[in-house]
Amino acid sequence: MSQHVEGIVYLVGAGPGDPGLLTLRAARLLASADTVVYDRLIHPEVLTHTRPHARLVFVGKEGGGESVAQEEIHTLLIAQARLGRTVVRLKGGDPFVFGRGGEEALALEAAGIAYEVVPGVSSGLAAPAAAAIPVTHRGVSGSVTFATAHRTGQAPDWAHLAGAETLVLFMAGRRLEEVTLALIAAGRAPSTPAAIVEAGTWAHQRVIEAPLASIAARAREEAVGSPALLVVGEVVSLRAQLPTLARTR
Amino acid sequence: MSQHVEGIVYLVGAGPGDPGLLTLRAARLLASADTVVYDRLIHPEVLTHTRPHARLVFVGKEGGGESVAQEEIHTLLIAQARLGRTVVRLKGGDPFVFGRGGEEALALEAAGIAYEVVPGVSSGLAAPAAAAIPVTHRGVSGSVTFATAHRTGQAPDWAHLAGAETLVLFMAGRRLEEVTLALIAAGRAPSTPAAIVEAGTWAHQRVIEAPLASIAARAREEAVGSPALLVVGEVVSLRAQLPTLARTR
Repeated sequence: MSQHVEGIVYLVGAGPGDPGLLTLRAARLLASADTVVYDRLIHPEVLTHTRPHARLVFVGKEGGGESVAQEEIHTLLIAQARLGRTVVRLKGGDPFVFGRGGEEALALEAAGIAYEVVPGVSSGLAAPAAAAIPVTHRGVSGSVTFATAHRTGQAPDWAHLAGAETLVLFMAGRRLEEVTLALIAAGRAPSTPAAIVEAGTWAHQRVIEAPLASIAARAREEAVGSPALLVVGEVVSLRAQLPTLARTR
Repeated sequence: MSQHVEGIVYLVGAGPGDPGLLTLRAARLLASADTVVYDRLIHPEVLTHTRPHARLVFVGKEGGGESVAQEEIHTLLIAQARLGRTVVRLKGGDPFVFGRGGEEALALEAAGIAYEVVPGVSSGLAAPAAAAIPVTHRGVSGSVTFATAHRTGQAPDWAHLAGAETLVLFMAGRRLEEVTLALIAAGRAPSTPAAIVEAGTWAHQRVIEAPLASIAARAREEAVGSPALLVVGEVVSLRAQLPTLARTR
């Protein structure tokens, strides 16, 4: 008489912070989920879309032991799905932009679990936008590169990143000194406009603007915390021409 | 007795196509808009969020006379706002990722019109995701560059783009031959995995996968239309390891 009901895992982007930037599909999936496995940097209001009896599991990392934690997340997702649960794995931004969604998808694939991916609004474009910085702009920048300062195993290709028209560097907070020196050493002009967007799209968002050569010192003075994005390129100077937008937050 | 009521313009990203990838804020703004000015590549279902008596203005471009049309859009947005209307300017993807949102923001700023920007899910990450291609992946690609093949005035910096770990090229459809030859001439290996995602996240999405050297010919054989994104980089080969995801569409 027992019936096998197969679970499913949705790898869902929650967007950059502002709960209004959640997608309709993400909201609907949260409203039908039995289990929600969520990270740090998910706005509390996003979780209000869940059902009263949904099981909410926080798996946010506070640095260190990262790969072990990632393995544990895989085990948790697989176990919940095997119990027949509808699981939402909720990630800040987009699951495939430094979200380790690919690793989770591979783990689910290997375990034979049904899964889908639901893209989200990436912080890489939404945080600059909330700071009045268009990441591309006709006549100013025809491309944008998203990279991360926190990279396991391998150093970023600074020569390549220094040549980006617009560079958006994720997780830049703690390594700002090192990162800006590396970009300048690789040929980026020290005078290039740069900005740090701390907690982009959140109510407590802060923006610090300075030339590349001095942005790290300015960030230290202002005690910039996490999450923070570094934006480098001429597009940063458009900010001064968009005072209405810069004032929105 | 007359009262001046000031209008406002929201520059809103509608996401890549799939109407479920609209944000909650975009849906709410559409539901309160007097006027919606929208482009080609907006899913019809997205427009069902509007009120019954909202004025819907289609300003999609079919190539040619582009900058004139852009000026006309500015004039329209400003005129509607000056009539006291709440205007939603609805754009495919994200307003600041090749969406000319910056130009519209500058025009509104210059005209003294109130405006806000509402980021959207960019096609640059959602179309590859819908094709089972994570644009970044630990140990495979630590950065992603969004660029456009259609650039006014200035040729893309092919040497820089050829060095991108993951390159996502927008509006690649018509110039695929030229673009792939330029990337190879600039040093990208002809064997680099590449894919074209046509109509990413739409019901009629198609994915074509081939090495960089032969993708243009394959696209010609398959009569790839618009919109189409070209994805170049080792991450494309992850697709074969994610068959469940590749089958979702």
